[in-house]
Formats: sequence, C-alpha cells, structure tokens
Amino acid sequence: MKELGPIKAFVESKLNEVEIPQGPNNLYEPIRYFLNIGGKRIRPILTILAGEMYGENVDVTNKAIALELFHNFTLMHDDIMDEAPMRRNQETVHKKWNTNIGILSGDALLIKSYQYLLKDQSQNNQLILDIYNQIALQVCEGQQMDIDFEDQLGVTEDNYIEMIRKKTAVLIGCSLQIGAMATGADDEDARHLYSFGEKIGIAFQLKDDYLDAFANPETFGKQIGGDILANKKTYLLIRALEKANDEQREAIFNCFDVRNPSLKLEIMLNLYRELEVAQDLHEKMQFFYNGAMDHLKELRPKYAQDNIQTLIKIADFFMYRDQ
Amino acid sequence: MKELGPIKAFVESKLNEVEIPQGPNNLYEPIRYFLNIGGKRIRPILTILAGEMYGENVDVTNKAIALELFHNFTLMHDDIMDEAPMRRNQETVHKKWNTNIGILSGDALLIKSYQYLLKDQSQNNQLILDIYNQIALQVCEGQQMDIDFEDQLGVTEDNYIEMIRKKTAVLIGCSLQIGAMATGADDEDARHLYSFGEKIGIAFQLKDDYLDAFANPETFGKQIGGDILANKKTYLLIRALEKANDEQREAIFNCFDVRNPSLKLEIMLNLYRELEVAQDLHEKMQFFYNGAMDHLKELRPKYAQDNIQTLIKIADFFMYRDQ
Repeated sequence: MKELGPIKAFVESKLNEVEIPQGPNNLYEPIRYFLNIGGKRIRPILTILAGEMYGENVDVTNKAIALELFHNFTLMHDDIMDEAPMRRNQETVHKKWNTNIGILSGDALLIKSYQYLLKDQSQNNQLILDIYNQIALQVCEGQQMDIDFEDQLGVTEDNYIEMIRKKTAVLIGCSLQIGAMATGADDEDARHLYSFGEKIGIAFQLKDDYLDAFANPETFGKQIGGDILANKKTYLLIRALEKANDEQREAIFNCFDVRNPSLKLEIMLNLYRELEVAQDLHEKMQFFYNGAMDHLKELRPKYAQDNIQTLIKIADFFMYRDQ
Repeated sequence: MKELGPIKAFVESKLNEVEIPQGPNNLYEPIRYFLNIGGKRIRPILTILAGEMYGENVDVTNKAIALELFHNFTLMHDDIMDEAPMRRNQETVHKKWNTNIGILSGDALLIKSYQYLLKDQSQNNQLILDIYNQIALQVCEGQQMDIDFEDQLGVTEDNYIEMIRKKTAVLIGCSLQIGAMATGADDEDARHLYSFGEKIGIAFQLKDDYLDAFANPETFGKQIGGDILANKKTYLLIRALEKANDEQREAIFNCFDVRNPSLKLEIMLNLYRELEVAQDLHEKMQFFYNGAMDHLKELRPKYAQDNIQTLIKIADFFMYRDQ
C-alpha cells in the first residue's frame, strides 16, 4: 500500500509550479497566497491514485491540479459568502485584501482550473469536460442550498444529505472518475470510483459536523462549537429537531437566543447527548462508508492494484480522523 | 449585406433556449432574469458572422451563446464590484437578490459558458479552449486594472488603453476568432478577425467614455455624467490631466470635491472643452478604427463574402452610435 506523504508532497510541488502571471498583483497575489496556505490536497491525490490504476505512462497531474484549483476557487468564494475571517489560521482573501479582490481572484482560479483540466490531450477530454461542468454546477447548487437552508425551517435529513452531496461529495467522486477516465478506464470502473468518492465525501462532511461539536479540544486545533454558536443547520441539529419532543424542541429554539457562548454550548451539547444524535450521525456515516466499500469491490484495475488499499486508508481517515 | 436584426432575434431565441435547471431557484432564477434584460448581443452576432465566412454546414451557435454567457458572467460580477444598482433600467442581481446570490449565479454562468463553448465536437476545440481561457483571464486582469486605477495617480493614456483592451476588447476579438476557428478558417484569417475585433472593441469603449460626458440627453436614454460624478478615470479625464497646465490641473482636482452634481458637471465639461479632449478621443477612436479596417482587407473568406460589409457596418455603429 502506498504512503500518502510522497503523493501529497508531489502535489504541493506541482501546485507551486502552477503558472500564475505576475500582474496585476491584486489579481494574482491572492491566488499565490491562497494556494500556499495548505490543505489536505485530497482531490488531486485521488485523481493520481485513480489514474495509476488504469494507465501506464499517462500523466494525470494537470487534471489533478485542475481539481485542486477548482476546490480553492469554491473556498475563496465561500469564505466571502460565509464572512469567514480565517482559514487554516490565516486570513481569508476577502479579509486580507477585500471582497472585490476575493470575487475576481476566485473567478481567475476557476478559469485556471479549466486551463489545467484540458492542458494535456486525451481522447476522453470532451467527456471529461462534460462531467466536470456538470459537477461544477452541482457544487454551486450545493452552496446555494446551504445558504437557503439558513432561513428555512423544516430542513429534513434527506435535504441535508443532498446538500452536502452536492456541495462536497460530488467533487471528491469526480476527482477519482476523471483520473480513471483520462487513463482509459472503462465506464463501469469510472462510475464505481465516482460513487465510492461521493459516498466517502458524504461521510467526510458528516464527520465535520461531529467534530465541530464533539472533538477533543486538545487534538482538534480549532475552536469547538462554531456551528452551534452560529445556529448553523448541521446534521446534528436537524436530527435533534426531528427527534425532539415538544419540550426539547422548545429548549433548542430557546438555545438559539442564548448569548453566553459557554452556556450555549453546554445546553446544546446536553440536548445532543440526550437525543443521541451523535450515534445517529455515526450510523449514517457507516451506511455511506459501507456503500463506498461495495463500489470498491467492483473495481477491476489494470495496474497498481494495491491503490485500492490506499483508497480504503483514505476512507478510514475520513471516518476516524480527529481533526 | 446582412441585416443584423434577424441575427439578433436568432441569438435571443437561442438564449431563451439555454438549458437552465429549475432549482435551486436562488441560483438559477437570477440567471434567467439577467439573460432576459437584454443587450446588444454583439459578441454572439460576431461569432455567427465569422463562422458563416469559413464554413458551410458548421453550426457555431453554441459557441456564440458561450460568449454571451461569459459576457453576462462578467457583467453580473462587475455590477457587484461597482456597486451598480441598475443595468438597462432593471435592478442588478445583487440588488434585487443579494451579493452572495450575485457571486454564485455569476459563477454558475461562467461554468455554463464552458458548457456551451465545447458542446459541439470540432477539431479545433482544444485550441479554441486554450484561446478562450487566455482571453477569460485577460478580462479578469482588465477588471482588476480598472479597480486598481481608481486609487492610482499617474495613470497614463497607454495604461488606460491597455486596461480597456483587456476588459472589453479582447473578448470582442475572441468572439470573431472562435467563430472562424470553429469553421476551419486558417490561422491568419482567424488572427486578422481577432485584431479587427480587438481594435473596434477599443473604439467602442472610448465611445462609451465620450457618450457619458457629451451624449445628447434626449437620445442617450441614461443619465449623463455618471463617470464625472463618480470621479471615474476615463480617457477624457486622463487626457485632461495630461494636457492641463498647473491651474487647470488644480481646477480638476478641486472639482473632484464639488458636491453639487450639476455644478460639478458644468465645471468638468467646461474643462474638457477647454482642453479639447473630446477631439483627442475621436482621433484615438479613428486610429483604432483605421487599424481594424486594415485587418479586414487581409481576409480571404470562403463563403458569405458580404459579411465583411456587415462587419464594417458594426464597426461604424461602434463609432457613430449615440447611445
């Protein structure tokens, strides 16, 4: 089984080589800055792993980079929409520069992602672009659903899963699918890889909700309870509202208005514990994890068979990470 | 020579047919709304005219639509950055909905433009995409330069022309070039068409500056002097600052602080007249118009030779329009 460290280091080195023009400085410096603040680089790693499984001597690096550039475009614009001041302990672009620069640098990143996606000729480029466009629109749809949910009562568990599927999971699936397609995998394998990625992507996002509320502060590395303090609709909150009796539901709504942060956290975490929503979340994660594993079993890679073990390792990291 | 009316009507009907998903409503309704508020549709018209000159039975409609979608993406995001409340007497998207929706719907429009650009197979698709990406980045660069100029003293005439070239003219050039490339024009003709478009694009933008200050209010249809009231750096202002003696320069700087709109307009228009900057602007326009015509003379279209007359008609409209 492959170690992920060297692949991540390779991705970082290639991201460093992304051709970014010198000027105007206010357009391109934020892109250099943002690509430098790091990240898990999960998407390009998945593209490379999938590529290795179906082609020898086919370089999918530029396509992998395209997916990371796209991901960073979404982060840059999402940070504006969420009014997020920090990302990975660094100031966000719209905060360090301003909103207009955040909008425009994000636009340029999206365009650059298309530049890298089809930089290398490949017989499947047209099909890859079709899929990429579809997925890209779904990511926008997911972000819009996330915004819409803020003002909506009655968001169901299914609505929520559909939102995180579009906002996060489809791009993870597509990262694998494109790596496979670019190296000539058959449709069936490419689709199974997509579905594996989509399902572990949903599990990943659910875990995010869990960690925000229940992470160990010593290992988590960021503030606990940000979602609770912002009254954000997470899986935990939606599930809690679904399971609550009248009294508990009233307690949740009352808690939305509590100003004291530590008191607010205490009340809501107690309600979550009472309603056992963390258990529900873990069951849901397990459901998607199991589904993902079923797709892996269907794969018939031509090369690098042990990459399947590496994919399982990534799925396990998504499930069992503590930060 | 072709009438433009029917081509524009054809473009409108195709824009109406652009596949826009039903939901989320807050993502897609703004796109439908924005495409409906109209426009000159110059870019897709140019793509279609260029396409007719080099290929029979090659349909460039989807590529033409891509260029109009891209243009609308830039308008939607520019409106946010300029804090513009109105466009074509209709509320802008960020005003009618909100900024986040303006950002995200603009993103989706950009993605949709890529969807249409390569919807139809064409041997030149890879090359077309390369050019499109380059041009798209230049448009972002032009917008950033425009924003940067607001806070800069000493913006020269050349800086300004370079800014409007990138912000507006390259996309007009590219609209023609892509139409030609998609139908198999040779490189030389495609490049001449690009340069023709770029040069009339610069003339177009210069005319915009002229009309803002000197249009006939009865035919112009919008408020006169918006640029002057906003102290916006236009060709007229930059040229005035270049030509002014110390006393006139001081008068210009003092005028920036005048609060009374009609007084402010009167002072600045008098200075423009005194310094004869409208004459300079018209000379500059004529220079680019002449350059554009030189490129047209080099064309060797296989079909629809009279489209060259139509292109001249469009160039003349750019030069002599009063709105």
